[in-house]
Order: sequence, then structure tokens, then C-alpha cells
Amino acid sequence: MAEISAGKARSIIRKAFAKGDEMGFKPLSVVVLDAGGHVKAFERADGAAPGRFAIANGKAYGAIMLGMAGTAQMARAEQQAYFMAAANGVFGGNVVPVPGGVLVRDKRDNVIGAVGVTGDTSDNDLIAAMAGIEAVGLTGEG
Amino acid sequence: MAEISAGKARSIIRKAFAKGDEMGFKPLSVVVLDAGGHVKAFERADGAAPGRFAIANGKAYGAIMLGMAGTAQMARAEQQAYFMAAANGVFGGNVVPVPGGVLVRDKRDNVIGAVGVTGDTSDNDLIAAMAGIEAVGLTGEG
Amino acid sequence: MAEISAGKARSIIRKAFAKGDEMGFKPLSVVVLDAGGHVKAFERADGAAPGRFAIANGKAYGAIMLGMAGTAQMARAEQQAYFMAAANGVFGGNVVPVPGGVLVRDKRDNVIGAVGVTGDTSDNDLIAAMAGIEAVGLTGEG
Amino acid sequence: MAEISAGKARSIIRKAFAKGDEMGFKPLSVVVLDAGGHVKAFERADGAAPGRFAIANGKAYGAIMLGMAGTAQMARAEQQAYFMAAANGVFGGNVVPVPGGVLVRDKRDNVIGAVGVTGDTSDNDLIAAMAGIEAVGLTGEG
Repeated sequence: MAEISAGKARSIIRKAFAKGDEMGFKPLSVVVLDAGGHVKAFERADGAAPGRFAIANGKAYGAIMLGMAGTAQMARAEQQAYFMAAANGVFGGNVVPVPGGVLVRDKRDNVIGAVGVTGDTSDNDLIAAMAGIEAVGLTGEG
Repeated sequence: MAEISAGKARSIIRKAFAKGDEMGFKPLSVVVLDAGGHVKAFERADGAAPGRFAIANGKAYGAIMLGMAGTAQMARAEQQAYFMAAANGVFGGNVVPVPGGVLVRDKRDNVIGAVGVTGDTSDNDLIAAMAGIEAVGLTGEG
Repeated sequence: MAEISAGKARSIIRKAFAKGDEMGFKPLSVVVLDAGGHVKAFERADGAAPGRFAIANGKAYGAIMLGMAGTAQMARAEQQAYFMAAANGVFGGNVVPVPGGVLVRDKRDNVIGAVGVTGDTSDNDLIAAMAGIEAVGLTGEG
Repeated sequence: MAEISAGKARSIIRKAFAKGDEMGFKPLSVVVLDAGGHVKAFERADGAAPGRFAIANGKAYGAIMLGMAGTAQMARAEQQAYFMAAANGVFGGNVVPVPGGVLVRDKRDNVIGAVGVTGDTSDNDLIAAMAGIEAVGLTGEG
């Protein structure tokens, strides 16, 4: 299985930030996780609140652990809030079920990691995440 | 970046209590956190319930970690309850999303800490917090 | 049962800091807990590390929950480390078994609270705690 | 107080990796925390084990919270193992008391963050951390 290399993770972060700057988003924070949900790289822009690592990580970690991107998690949360609360419980509180948590797939459609973006609205966070993923030739499922 | 000194933290607490006395509020508890969400000073008035540290701290800690004051957190909780539940998860249960958690800004608009007040209604808690913050020449975002 | 009032808690903290200044100790942090182990007041001096609340609280909280002051806890830890590790487990990690956690007794010898001091050596922390407690006419068991 | 900007954090990480490559160290992981112990940036080199974020973070986080670098923490752990075990308890298990956790000081000697490096021996981790910090004109206390 292909993995997200450190170099690609760095590029995803740089390109997600560039998209945020271009669009005039608030300061973003971006995490890249591997296929096991473990942190590969992270950066919090100047001016972002101190707790942004945990939010970014929660978006991406939940996506990996459930195999379900943030948008789908949010739909589930709106239909069945107690399910997502329970998922949060079993994963130690580290699930943030809103857009901006994006599964990363390779050309064979395998999940090879996830990206989590936070800082602006959830929808804008997702735009920045997708820009970062696509810039390195991978496919995002948001 | 300016910090809230121990002396200023003590003054904020004293003035918040004075406001509560003047307004006839129930016994208050007041915490002052630094810009990293770490406790600088706390006091629980005689007659306040034993668990008030955790509530006051949760109001102020959530404000710091999310970069969002209690009133804004409450609005988000009312629109999207599962988001604030998830935020609570990622921050170890230490987020209390109601008024009375106030970001403290210096003259350059940097967040230099937060104040959390609990004991009366959330709206009254916020009044006392703002009185304490303004009494030392700082700006509160409630 | 007498309780430690907010006023007395403030005095204990002020006098413990004064002792530290007089003795040339490093910046101290002082917590006062009630007889149930709940925070009544706390202050962290300028220059103390961010995590000092948790250390001060752990010293005082362990003293309350075990009914055993820091010096006795340390002796037990040296004889039977796994016992203190287990105590730490059952009390959620909030036990710091070294001097500076002091039981506060009234004239009838009832435990009415505890003081936790941290910042200098454990022995010096204890000196400051005792000075604060004695200054308000209470008895410390260190 | 100066802060470690995102740009400086990135440079610290890049230079620490470069030092590791130059010295022939195993694949490193490097975290940069702010003065409140919150993650600013992180990167795990290709080939490093999945759990390296938690180790790097624990080295740097413990340094911030205790105001004590990894080498001093290790000395304390060797003299008084139960104290560091207790510190680990009060800080949620996030303290790794070995070299490689380095306090970062500015020109006025204020702690403005911490760097945590893991992957090779603790002594080599420390060498890489110091190289990164010094490359951006800051001072490390290892």
C-alpha cells in the first residue's frame, strides 16, 4: 500500500494553507494522519487558537477510525446524535464529526491516510483540505 | 505579548466578587487562566458548591482552546450540539459552553488569558467576569 | 466542623508566598482545598511553570483523600512504591506523594482542608505551606 | 514575550532532521510546542514508528509543564521514581522524562516553547533538538 510520505504530508499542509490564504480564510491548522490514524505531520498557523491540534486531529482521526469522512459523520450525527457520541466514547473523545476531516485515497482507492483542517467554517476547512490533497495527486473523500 | 500577572489576576477576582456582591448575585467562583489555558489564580466564595472550580475552569478553558468565548460557544451548541460535545471530548471533558467564559485581550487585541465565572445565572456570571476584567484595564470578549 | 473560609484561604496563600520571598525560594504556587478535596483558592506566582496547579493540587488532594500528609506519603512511596502508584490510579492520577502537601487541622484536631505548595524543593515547599497555615491560627500536619 | 512562529517551528523541524541525517541517526520525529504546551508543528520522518508523536509530545510537554528539561527530569526520575510517576499522573500520562525534551528560551531567558525529539537514543535526540533550536537563533535548555 502506498503511504503518505513526510514530503507529501508537508506539501499537503503547505497547499492547504495557500488555499486558505488565497480564499481569505481565518488562520488554519492542518494535520495529516497515516492509514492507522497516527500523526504524520501538523502545523498550526500564527493566530490560530491553542487547541487547534486536538480539533484537526479529531476530524481526521474519526475519519480513519470509522472509515467515514467528516461530511458523512455530520449527516450521521444529525440523524442519530447518540451514535456519534458513542463513537466519541469508544475512541477516547477523539472524534469531531464535521466537514474538514477528509479520507485520502490512492489510485487503487485504498485509504492511505486522512487530513484534518480547522480554523474557518467547516465547509471552508474542507475546501482547504481538498486543495492540499489534490495538489499532491491524491484523492480526497470529504 | 503581555501576560496576566498574579497581581492582576488577584484584582480581577476581587473585582468580580465585588460586582457580584453589589448586584446581589449568589456566591461566585472565579478562575483566571493564562494564554495557554493554565490556571493562574482561583477563588471560590464561601457558600458556593464544592464543584465550582471545574465549572469555572471549563468555561475559561474552552474559551482559550477554541478561541471562542462562552456566548459564541453556546450559540454553536444550540445550532450543532454534537460539535460542542465532540469539542468536549477532544479537550478531556473540560469545556463548558455557556456565558461566563470570557477571553481577555490586551491593547493589541491579543488573547492573553481567560476568566471563568460561575455561581449565578450564566448571564450574571458574565457581568461579574466583565467587571473584573475591565477593572484592571483589559478587554473582555464574552 | 469549622471550614477554611475564602478569607483564610487567601491569607494562607499570601503568607506562604511571603515566606518564600523571605527565604529566597523560587516562585511558588499554592492551593487551598476544603475537607472534601475541592479547590477553595489557588495562586501561581509570576515565573512559575504553567503546570504548577496540577502539582500543588496533587499534593493537597492526595493528603485529603488518603488522610496522610506528603511526608508520610513519601515514606510510604519509598517503602512500597506500588501502593502509591495504585493510590494514584484510584484517584485519577491526582496524588503527588512528596512534602508540600499538608493537612490542615482545627483546634479539635479535625481535618478541615489541605494546602499544597510547589515550586522549590519539596522541603522548602513544606516550610512555606506551614508558615501560611500557622499565620491564620490553624495547625498543619506536613 | 516572543513566540515561536509557524515559520520558525518549521525551520526547527527541518534543521533537526538535517542534523539527524548528517549524523546518521535513525528516522526522527520532532514536535514544537508553544509556551502553554500546545502543538505548533510536528513531523514524523518516513520509517519512524507510528507512536512517535506521543513520545515527542510527552518529552516537550513535560518540559513545559514542569519547567524542567528532559535531562533534569531523568535525574529526578532516577532519584525519586515515584515523583515522576506522579507527575505523569497529574499531566494525563503525557510526561516522558528523558533527554530530547528541550525548553526553548528567547534572549530575555523566557521560556517561549519546547521541542521534543524522538527516534534515536535519547542523547542523540537531544543533539538533533539543540541543532534545530540553535539554527533559528534561540537557546535550548536540554
